[in-house]
Amino acid sequence: MNAIILAIGDELVLGQTIDTNSAWLSQQLAAVGCEIRCHLVVPDDQQEIQTAIRESIATCDFLLISGGIGPTEDDLTRQALAKVLKQPLQLNELWLQELHKFFEARGRKMPEMNKIQAMIPRGAEMIFNHAGTAAGIHAKLRRLPLIHQLSAERGLEATYESGYDPICHFFVMPGVPKEMKAMFLCDVLPHIREQGGGAVILSRTLHTFGLGESAVAELLGDLMRRDKNPSVGTTVARGVVSLRVNARFPSREKALQELNQMADACRAALGDLIYGEDEQSLQQVVAELLIQRNTEAANQNKSFTVTTAESCTGGLLAAMLTDTSGSSAYFRQGFVTYANEAKRELLAVPQEMLEQHGAVSEQVVTSMATGARQRTGAQVALAISGIAGPTGGTPEKPVGTVWIALASEAGIAARRFLFAGDREMIRDRSAKMALTMLRFHLLNKPMPF
Amino acid sequence: MNAIILAIGDELVLGQTIDTNSAWLSQQLAAVGCEIRCHLVVPDDQQEIQTAIRESIATCDFLLISGGIGPTEDDLTRQALAKVLKQPLQLNELWLQELHKFFEARGRKMPEMNKIQAMIPRGAEMIFNHAGTAAGIHAKLRRLPLIHQLSAERGLEATYESGYDPICHFFVMPGVPKEMKAMFLCDVLPHIREQGGGAVILSRTLHTFGLGESAVAELLGDLMRRDKNPSVGTTVARGVVSLRVNARFPSREKALQELNQMADACRAALGDLIYGEDEQSLQQVVAELLIQRNTEAANQNKSFTVTTAESCTGGLLAAMLTDTSGSSAYFRQGFVTYANEAKRELLAVPQEMLEQHGAVSEQVVTSMATGARQRTGAQVALAISGIAGPTGGTPEKPVGTVWIALASEAGIAARRFLFAGDREMIRDRSAKMALTMLRFHLLNKPMPF
Repeated sequence: MNAIILAIGDELVLGQTIDTNSAWLSQQLAAVGCEIRCHLVVPDDQQEIQTAIRESIATCDFLLISGGIGPTEDDLTRQALAKVLKQPLQLNELWLQELHKFFEARGRKMPEMNKIQAMIPRGAEMIFNHAGTAAGIHAKLRRLPLIHQLSAERGLEATYESGYDPICHFFVMPGVPKEMKAMFLCDVLPHIREQGGGAVILSRTLHTFGLGESAVAELLGDLMRRDKNPSVGTTVARGVVSLRVNARFPSREKALQELNQMADACRAALGDLIYGEDEQSLQQVVAELLIQRNTEAANQNKSFTVTTAESCTGGLLAAMLTDTSGSSAYFRQGFVTYANEAKRELLAVPQEMLEQHGAVSEQVVTSMATGARQRTGAQVALAISGIAGPTGGTPEKPVGTVWIALASEAGIAARRFLFAGDREMIRDRSAKMALTMLRFHLLNKPMPF
Repeated sequence: MNAIILAIGDELVLGQTIDTNSAWLSQQLAAVGCEIRCHLVVPDDQQEIQTAIRESIATCDFLLISGGIGPTEDDLTRQALAKVLKQPLQLNELWLQELHKFFEARGRKMPEMNKIQAMIPRGAEMIFNHAGTAAGIHAKLRRLPLIHQLSAERGLEATYESGYDPICHFFVMPGVPKEMKAMFLCDVLPHIREQGGGAVILSRTLHTFGLGESAVAELLGDLMRRDKNPSVGTTVARGVVSLRVNARFPSREKALQELNQMADACRAALGDLIYGEDEQSLQQVVAELLIQRNTEAANQNKSFTVTTAESCTGGLLAAMLTDTSGSSAYFRQGFVTYANEAKRELLAVPQEMLEQHGAVSEQVVTSMATGARQRTGAQVALAISGIAGPTGGTPEKPVGTVWIALASEAGIAARRFLFAGDREMIRDRSAKMALTMLRFHLLNKPMPF
């Protein structure tokens, strides 16, 4: 079972946008044991798209196409596919209705040009798009080796080698990553799984935040040896160091059993440094802990909420705490006190303290947390004050210096961090570190670093 | 003059690493007028690499290969190239000396396995690597259309169409981005320029927020016709609809002149809907307008600041307003009033109003903005209250319903929006729409939608 991944778009071929869809699709396919033959990126040119599709059919079971099904004239994937299939495009009434509904809900009339997004080659299946206006397409075609196709174009007769699986499945998905991912997981992946049968590759990803990649690798030691099956590798994204465990075995049962065993070994090595797995974000995990604590408190007729007082992160921590639906249970309000006067007025940080120690100091961040907790009556208050840069650094407090405090019934803990990277990275890491301090507070455990 | 870009590596095909080399190479090639036919990514498999090279020769003047020339067993590009060229690999003494020097300078003996990095197919040229141990390769081969190659493999005679340029240049470069870039700029680009004399492609991107892709396309009308040069295409990312203008002309001067003209025509069609170009974000553009207004106010000994009162966006708008360095000039504080009691206590929203109209209403969002402005003395206050979902929707106020208000000296404007997508998208669009309302307020112009 193998696949070719074809991405379509001038912006990709011109290098103006980096193709991230293909890498994501590869990961998904590898996880179900589907081999990836190659990635191919072609421009919004009907002839080039047709050639790419024709050449791919020769050598793969699945052709996954993303991009070129928008409503504008430069979107030509459906036309190219129809040509290769030698079928006319037909209006799919079901999707046309969905389009009308989509625009009606927004109080607008559907622009005439969007109608093309409901056109599907005759005989192909429409795939629902739950996140946008472009319907996907699923079609099948006899796999014809390229030499035969070329011969056929020249009027020669095509012959099949024996034992040659003659069907290639095409899936056309939107280029917008979010829409593509939703469509792939809902409607494409099940088809591929169904065809599977060979070796099963199961994966699990375990996420950590707080230590660097090499420090995590040191803790894992021998578990990361290259020749292991299941294998363990690390990746880093936005400060989160993730362990990817891949188990490749003939049967699903065996793969799952080995995967669980290896994941347990990783958990034993890293302990609570691992905050979650697979699609779980740090935000979600903390939200779940907060909802749980809130429910426990409510059962005792008590309240449990958290509040925020942010300087350099400017609201990012509050936004992360409210990322998850249901956050109103534990989050009622937060303060963005960017200026010193705001820290003074809204959080009662003393002017002398600001003058004596500066806004980025243990004293001020502690005072911010205490002030926010008193002002709101929340059980826990988190405060952040730091230098996100690129300007404002000094030798004693370089760019990246961030103080974070957590105030609760049990007292106040404040810590100084030095984060690397640009302004955006420093703000992101600061908010995530505050969430991590909150997480260990809720777990009632000391931070492991 | 055209090129195919071939990247080699298991980690790319498995999606563990995103291929950024190909996008960079595309930008470089486009800038000298070399058309890019496609990007191709194949695994570290000698057969697959050979096939990719053979198929590419058929259709391009330049084949740029990156990756697979390291010292380890899974690096097979040079072997594959030698097979396609039907030449043996020979030791390049000059590069072997360089390798010895490289290791000596580091006080180490050259490991035996690195010797392979000095092996070059007979008849090909070695390219110096100024940043690493893998020598590059430059080779030429008669371009053979694929049908002829396949026929030749089957013992049939190949024929050339007349007027067919029979030479394809191959360049093999390291996969490490730093080494690849240095080698390309020093030793590959000059060859391509020399062959060129061809066209120059210049690009510009114009960004809009507020209207959908098809509505923008309708406003552009004929400017988006496929046969235009410069051409105009649209892409969407996180609610931002961008216009990509590409001008392809024989000289740089002509290309720049035509590009400017077409960009002006787009600006004429879309007006202030365009908020910025190329690397500019909405956040940056609004920050610049705010800094400008703040400076003007300061010159008159006045103050100009903006504050925020956020419900469903939970701090995201404040975080966007403080994205840019220097934001302390215009942003001092913001309120995250997620719960009704917080709206009441921090912003003085009347309890009866909350009960009568609900938190997501014109009345409440207006009261939030007024309250925030009065509380802080800021000149402008933005307030957001909406239903980010996935729960909480009703038939009258479905998920995605968001009220945004802007309060200033001039009065209060409030608008209702209905955003599509999931919780994360609705929150992101809400904050961006608030920034957009602020932008038009600062421009002293009505919103164009």
